[in-house]
Amino acid sequence: MSDSSATPPTIGVFDSGFGGLTVLRALIGKLPRARFAFLGDTARLPYGSKSRRTIARYAVESAQFLVKEQGAEFLVIACNTASALALNAIQEAVPVPVLGVIEPGATAGRAASQTGDVLVIATDATVQSHAYAAACKAQGLRALEKACPLLVPLVEEGWGDPSSVFRAGSETSAAQATSAPPQVAVTAEVIRIYLNELATDAAAEGLKPDTLVLGCTHYPLLRTLIESAVPEGMRVIDSAESAAEAAARLFNGRAKSRGTIDIDWPTEIRCFATDSVEKFERLGSRFLGRPVGTVELVDLGG
Amino acid sequence: MSDSSATPPTIGVFDSGFGGLTVLRALIGKLPRARFAFLGDTARLPYGSKSRRTIARYAVESAQFLVKEQGAEFLVIACNTASALALNAIQEAVPVPVLGVIEPGATAGRAASQTGDVLVIATDATVQSHAYAAACKAQGLRALEKACPLLVPLVEEGWGDPSSVFRAGSETSAAQATSAPPQVAVTAEVIRIYLNELATDAAAEGLKPDTLVLGCTHYPLLRTLIESAVPEGMRVIDSAESAAEAAARLFNGRAKSRGTIDIDWPTEIRCFATDSVEKFERLGSRFLGRPVGTVELVDLGG
Repeated sequence: MSDSSATPPTIGVFDSGFGGLTVLRALIGKLPRARFAFLGDTARLPYGSKSRRTIARYAVESAQFLVKEQGAEFLVIACNTASALALNAIQEAVPVPVLGVIEPGATAGRAASQTGDVLVIATDATVQSHAYAAACKAQGLRALEKACPLLVPLVEEGWGDPSSVFRAGSETSAAQATSAPPQVAVTAEVIRIYLNELATDAAAEGLKPDTLVLGCTHYPLLRTLIESAVPEGMRVIDSAESAAEAAARLFNGRAKSRGTIDIDWPTEIRCFATDSVEKFERLGSRFLGRPVGTVELVDLGG
Repeated sequence: MSDSSATPPTIGVFDSGFGGLTVLRALIGKLPRARFAFLGDTARLPYGSKSRRTIARYAVESAQFLVKEQGAEFLVIACNTASALALNAIQEAVPVPVLGVIEPGATAGRAASQTGDVLVIATDATVQSHAYAAACKAQGLRALEKACPLLVPLVEEGWGDPSSVFRAGSETSAAQATSAPPQVAVTAEVIRIYLNELATDAAAEGLKPDTLVLGCTHYPLLRTLIESAVPEGMRVIDSAESAAEAAARLFNGRAKSRGTIDIDWPTEIRCFATDSVEKFERLGSRFLGRPVGTVELVDLGG
């Protein structure tokens, strides 16, 4: 029997920027009746160019804000770099369960792959950490990773798909909006070049990949273009989706034990950022698939 | 009469990253017999997403390192964002002359333009500061600025020109190197899209621009592609070149008064970075047009 005065647990979601909103979007899809607190550490991004020690310090401070100040009862690290380099440090620093995005991505890869060979595309920092290769190996998979540094800026510029190609807030004529935008053709060509290079490298190593893991929170916004570019029959895995499934199992266990599993609670989202609130509000809705609302500025120091 | 035991003055060159090496390259072209100390504050880049106060603090710390620890007798701020937001703060903080890149760019624009209307392409942060528009207005020019956020990542990915399209250190077959690379076609198309948008906006505002100012230290690496994309007769101004000319006048005045103007001194370059020394060494030579040698790691704190 549920306690109608109780509230569902709060899920803290953390990213270095706002790309992790694609993970929040997937979480909302699985858990529409939950409360979410999302923090983007936008003042200190990108984490990719920084040392492991610095990334761990930033990520721990961010995690502590979500747990101590927002009452998060578990955390999803919606940032591949932080998942790759700081998951253990965060798990040691906070007294709640912490999920990253990399292990769920590898698990989903194992479920999808028949050949046991998977491809992973990600940012430079994530690839250099080889965290996906290690997680895949632990699952008995062979993985080939490739950095695709242009994809994040292409998404952030709004060149990813026809619906978001014109910058939010700019005036767009109906004629412009319905013509095939050359911006999208550029992005499709960049994806084709990267995937061709990856296929060549895979063949050279004797791999027979049948699965592609999207190892960056920005890439789900390119999913349609990526699916058009992969060979017939190749599965495309979104690690945001896989992480959301793992988080939903954890959340439902917690909600059941508290008796809030059946209460009718509307999706509640609070977004926080450490800088650049305006850019977060402007671009965030494209990642979240709904308005992000007012983003609250927080100061974590440093 | 020159004092052969004397050494030429040291010129300190500062950037948030290594893009400013294009300014150093231009300086070496004008001043082959000088000593240079270059600092890239790579641990804290990009400056573009940070507040004016934070940028000023970082830039002042960097300038003080060059003056106090490297004995620089004047400084060139080879970073458009720092020039736009922190030039005054640096000038107040160090006892040596300090040159930015924006005013020389506007001066060169005035010299080149017949119509008095110029276009400026730059990063988001530089455009948002409207520092070029203000500097151009002070010269009696009308300027239209446009942010081109994809150009920096395209240069850093090595997709800018045929000679640098394959990543340094990777094996490249002769067949690959001589075929027309699709990567360069992507960059050419991105430039065409940006410049078309800019031309449309300029026409809508009734401007008749005949000059394009490259307001980012990465863009000189795209100069050939940009020159192919602008209308017949449009002048392309590299603010790195203009800043180097202004610096050379200052340097020669100083060297003359010291009696070192005629001594035969080989070009001497020391490069420092606050993080990511490996990436600096790997990509820097593409910007400098010669090997950067060993890059020394310095800790400026914060």
